Amino acid sequence: MNIDGLGEFGLIERIRAGEGTLPRGIMGIGDDCAVLPQRKGYKTLVSTDLLMEGVHFLLEDIDPYSLGWKSAAVNLSDIAAMGGRPLGSFLAFALPKALDSKWMDDFFRGYRAVSGLCSAPLLGGDTTSSLDRLCICVTVLGECEDGHEILRSGARPGDRICVSGTLGDSAGGLKLILGGLPRAGAGERLIERHYRPVPRVAEGQRIAACGATAMMDISDGIGSDLRHITRASGVGAVVRVKDLPLSEELLSQSALYGWNARGLAIDGGEDYELLFTMPSDALRNLDIPYTEIGEIVPGEDILWEGASSQEHKGFRHF
Amino acid sequence: MNIDGLGEFGLIERIRAGEGTLPRGIMGIGDDCAVLPQRKGYKTLVSTDLLMEGVHFLLEDIDPYSLGWKSAAVNLSDIAAMGGRPLGSFLAFALPKALDSKWMDDFFRGYRAVSGLCSAPLLGGDTTSSLDRLCICVTVLGECEDGHEILRSGARPGDRICVSGTLGDSAGGLKLILGGLPRAGAGERLIERHYRPVPRVAEGQRIAACGATAMMDISDGIGSDLRHITRASGVGAVVRVKDLPLSEELLSQSALYGWNARGLAIDGGEDYELLFTMPSDALRNLDIPYTEIGEIVPGEDILWEGASSQEHKGFRHF
Repeated sequence: MNIDGLGEFGLIERIRAGEGTLPRGIMGIGDDCAVLPQRKGYKTLVSTDLLMEGVHFLLEDIDPYSLGWKSAAVNLSDIAAMGGRPLGSFLAFALPKALDSKWMDDFFRGYRAVSGLCSAPLLGGDTTSSLDRLCICVTVLGECEDGHEILRSGARPGDRICVSGTLGDSAGGLKLILGGLPRAGAGERLIERHYRPVPRVAEGQRIAACGATAMMDISDGIGSDLRHITRASGVGAVVRVKDLPLSEELLSQSALYGWNARGLAIDGGEDYELLFTMPSDALRNLDIPYTEIGEIVPGEDILWEGASSQEHKGFRHF
Repeated sequence: MNIDGLGEFGLIERIRAGEGTLPRGIMGIGDDCAVLPQRKGYKTLVSTDLLMEGVHFLLEDIDPYSLGWKSAAVNLSDIAAMGGRPLGSFLAFALPKALDSKWMDDFFRGYRAVSGLCSAPLLGGDTTSSLDRLCICVTVLGECEDGHEILRSGARPGDRICVSGTLGDSAGGLKLILGGLPRAGAGERLIERHYRPVPRVAEGQRIAACGATAMMDISDGIGSDLRHITRASGVGAVVRVKDLPLSEELLSQSALYGWNARGLAIDGGEDYELLFTMPSDALRNLDIPYTEIGEIVPGEDILWEGASSQEHKGFRHF
């Protein structure tokens, strides 16, 4: 690997220098491993995601700042989905020859911008070359107090089903990108939601503290993701499709291009909002913006109340 | 992604089922994050490595069992190099279409074989498709008692420089592979050292407990790796090249093919043996096989005592 004359060790040194001072007691880049202190009464959370050029992103379309942002964000979102506090991230990437140091600097600006929002320093990783395509693997570490991690398996009949933010924006943004449609105004906002999702870390901690029974982040679309919660919890669900939170931007672009906005909200992926269940009395104390969209019921089926067949085709990865 | 009719979730379920029972208190595959307990007085160790087809391995040569083994082993070796105890690993991979479920099963047999040796269960990961080449990213977690992690920066003048095992075998194996040379007998052993290195986890913990001042695993060859220790510690070193531990197999294959065995031991990479420094009185208590190869001295230079210029060209990654 050689980026504008920087060899592997030069590049690592440059990345390390950009990281600044780490929290006390944490050792990051520079040895065989990163080292973090453990605390009695806490648990460590770990998640890892691989982003492949041509599968998860199109290098010719996404700008390096957004790609850096998204690479960190989709992983930090997994810590948020447990109700955890991020501790730091590990970034491994394989670089094709075509990328230069300007590209790398922009990538790291984006990576660090969202990592900074989440107080998650870069603690280590790996740099290597790739014969052709860019490949990025991010691992995040977080922690939460013992017993305060919110799994997918705790939903109980009677719990309310809620989401943070709005749904379908990211899928709308992707439609604009793939269709080569204009990116001004509302379209720009949807594309931003697709390229630079904000991990709901503070929200996840509030939701956990308030007494959520189950939580996950919405990466495939709630049409698919809610099923993970109902299966893991052994319950069914009723979702009121008319209550799904849709943004003004998605509604206006859907009207313009004839999209089914509710269909995008159900089956469109990559919102990275939080989907959670909570008893109604606990929900009264939740002081972040959220939308109640349905209720957990006995059984195993999910009823999409008021959905046309067109609106829920079931999202599949591949 | 679709392997012989297994979709993404089918494949994940198959991987999870293969993992068996996890240690008490640890939650692995199946939620947004894996969850591990923390302990007062301990530190968490984390390392990640990316293995790219065509850069780190040739898919047409390496068998899936060995590739699975090596993917886990090179990361577990980083935990060993801190004197740590592995807690578990995270495996993210991007699969090209050509690979089938038989290939995957063999890969996981190898991955689990070395993970089992090191008591490191698979705790999570990511599975996706790749447009062309196979890409593997492994992250390992480990732990050690507070203050017992062995960094690269603690070497002091007077410390003895030591290595576990023998050096250059892996580089010899690679020469046989790339040269299309016969693989029987001694050659087979060298190739095994290249494809299925054994992480020196138990040895690393013994070396740490005995009072090592610095340690790392040998991935680029000691010609390059010793420099990491001397730079991080602000010291120099004298290495007696005649004392480098060479295997019978490397000597016999070197005689046969006219290789410079000592040159392979210095500059050949991927031995995954441990390189460590220790005061001589502490070394007397070290009850694992090791070889003393030199001494830490003041200054910043490394003297390769008795090396020809041919024997130390300096290994570079790219």
